[in-house]
Amino acid sequence: MSQYWSKLVHDLDPYVPGEQPKDQRYVKLNTNECPYPPSPNALAAIHAAADERLRLYPDPNADELKDAIADYYSVERANIFAGNGSDEVLAHVFCGLLKHDAPLLYPDISYSFYPVYANLYQIEAKQIPLRDDFSLNLKDFSGKNGGIIFPNPNAPTSMAVGLDVIEALLQANRDSVVVVDEAYVDFGAETAIPLIAKYPNLLVVQTFSKSRSLAGLRVGFAVGHPDLINALERVKNSFNSYPLGRMAIAGAAAAMRDKEYFASTCQQIIATREMTVQKLTELGFSVLPSAANFVFARPPAGNAEALYLALKQRGVLVRYFNKLRINEYLRITIGTDDEMNTFLQILAEL
Amino acid sequence: MSQYWSKLVHDLDPYVPGEQPKDQRYVKLNTNECPYPPSPNALAAIHAAADERLRLYPDPNADELKDAIADYYSVERANIFAGNGSDEVLAHVFCGLLKHDAPLLYPDISYSFYPVYANLYQIEAKQIPLRDDFSLNLKDFSGKNGGIIFPNPNAPTSMAVGLDVIEALLQANRDSVVVVDEAYVDFGAETAIPLIAKYPNLLVVQTFSKSRSLAGLRVGFAVGHPDLINALERVKNSFNSYPLGRMAIAGAAAAMRDKEYFASTCQQIIATREMTVQKLTELGFSVLPSAANFVFARPPAGNAEALYLALKQRGVLVRYFNKLRINEYLRITIGTDDEMNTFLQILAEL
Repeated sequence: MSQYWSKLVHDLDPYVPGEQPKDQRYVKLNTNECPYPPSPNALAAIHAAADERLRLYPDPNADELKDAIADYYSVERANIFAGNGSDEVLAHVFCGLLKHDAPLLYPDISYSFYPVYANLYQIEAKQIPLRDDFSLNLKDFSGKNGGIIFPNPNAPTSMAVGLDVIEALLQANRDSVVVVDEAYVDFGAETAIPLIAKYPNLLVVQTFSKSRSLAGLRVGFAVGHPDLINALERVKNSFNSYPLGRMAIAGAAAAMRDKEYFASTCQQIIATREMTVQKLTELGFSVLPSAANFVFARPPAGNAEALYLALKQRGVLVRYFNKLRINEYLRITIGTDDEMNTFLQILAEL
Repeated sequence: MSQYWSKLVHDLDPYVPGEQPKDQRYVKLNTNECPYPPSPNALAAIHAAADERLRLYPDPNADELKDAIADYYSVERANIFAGNGSDEVLAHVFCGLLKHDAPLLYPDISYSFYPVYANLYQIEAKQIPLRDDFSLNLKDFSGKNGGIIFPNPNAPTSMAVGLDVIEALLQANRDSVVVVDEAYVDFGAETAIPLIAKYPNLLVVQTFSKSRSLAGLRVGFAVGHPDLINALERVKNSFNSYPLGRMAIAGAAAAMRDKEYFASTCQQIIATREMTVQKLTELGFSVLPSAANFVFARPPAGNAEALYLALKQRGVLVRYFNKLRINEYLRITIGTDDEMNTFLQILAEL
């Protein structure tokens, strides 16, 4: 506390990221990173870009990256916004598209940054409870609103909804922006991007940090109607003009272009997840149906916190949330087969 | 314009960055980049970091980089804040340290982002006019205030103030934060960083985009008392948690550690600047005394805009500001000797 701080700073409750311990080698199943390296093409592109051109500012529009994304999803460059991780993209989305007179709607159990951004931009928000089985029922997102945002699959529950219910939501809310946060979509859910041609109020947000194995590069993006993208560009270029760096543009664009590598690592993670779910079930865990690169599982005795601590002591990090409704669950990132077998073996011995 | 935009977006007046043309090879003297490549050690560090570890999130605290900066300036890690370019650092500074009841003071002719951030964070600001000779007289920054910020050297004037007057300002304003924005300090001014030990209200902001030849990497930092740094960390970790990527941390840290290369490129730019100033003076230009990697010069006929356009047509980009008081001046970045000779020769033929 200091007399020099703005009033705002005194009241802040800073976000605590997942543990990134430096003291010991852990089997790290706590931050939903991909266990496989980035595409060799992405690494090659970064090496190729790491030369004397770094003295120059990057392309402020990241056109190379936008074109790679547009090509992948068969949309236009004007449909793409790129940012320093999907958290930055989401910040611009809240500021530029979700701040209206009517309240913003999002699930009560969901990504922890939604209430943070709503608070930052002074957006009135209404949390819609998940059903008792943790399912996201989009019929509950009804009534006058100034926008709707939800992850698909949801986090930390791992559960996905289908495009049919998303389309019904879009039809019922033509006057407000619907944001589908698809950080985990590539592990078993279906992207809503094809719907942007039909629904000018749909914005889809994705990241390179999970399925594209580039969490260390900090790149995220949004796809939607050019009017929505234009709002994000205006916000960015007015007061948050942090362009992507040259390494980020080069690496992410190459990762996006390497479709085969991407498909094969996603498939491997899905196979490992199914094996993990089966063995956890055999150990008596209740595992929610996962379409993500993590599972959300309740140990038979509901003693999630104790298990989290015991696993940590034995060198395995998973994520525990000390929060109402989910405090008997563990969120377990899907690693390699070897990592999951180590985890499962330690778990069986506890 | 779209019904989906927040009210805020309608009123925005987006920043227009310096031209980054893709259509033609220009002698590019318009965005104050360094004409020399980054330290070979920086490039080597980036190559060494561009491997499978990119799948993992970066160190959210960028400790390796903070330690390199702390070592260079003989301060502690707790004195350092690192961000995605000094623009991001400045945004946190405005939000966390410069928003108070009394007005923020900054020069009327200065970095164009100050009014943008003041507006974004709804900070009452008072612009203090430069003297008629474009000098920044810190005695004019008097009276009750909620903070003071100025670049040293100033931009686009290129003129520096001495540490003695900065210290007098600090002594006269112990109740508010004084921010010295040292983007160009390494080209002939003196850094105020040694004063942070004595003045807990001093914050110094620097960038890797100019003297360290890494504009493409997007890294900036602030140095000050741990209480000030803590405010920035709280702002960042509360709602703007965009950590530096792995490439940025590795490259910037190595650049900071390569003191010899840094000193030699700065010296070369200073020598080229002195040559340029002499020749511009011979051509009848009035050149303000520069301590930066650019000069601010008035052509003999005051026809700055016409000259800017004529130079552009001949393949040389400089910066022209169509703004009261400075619309008869050109801002010319110092390139290599060859680039400046090309520029000077074309200028002589116009």
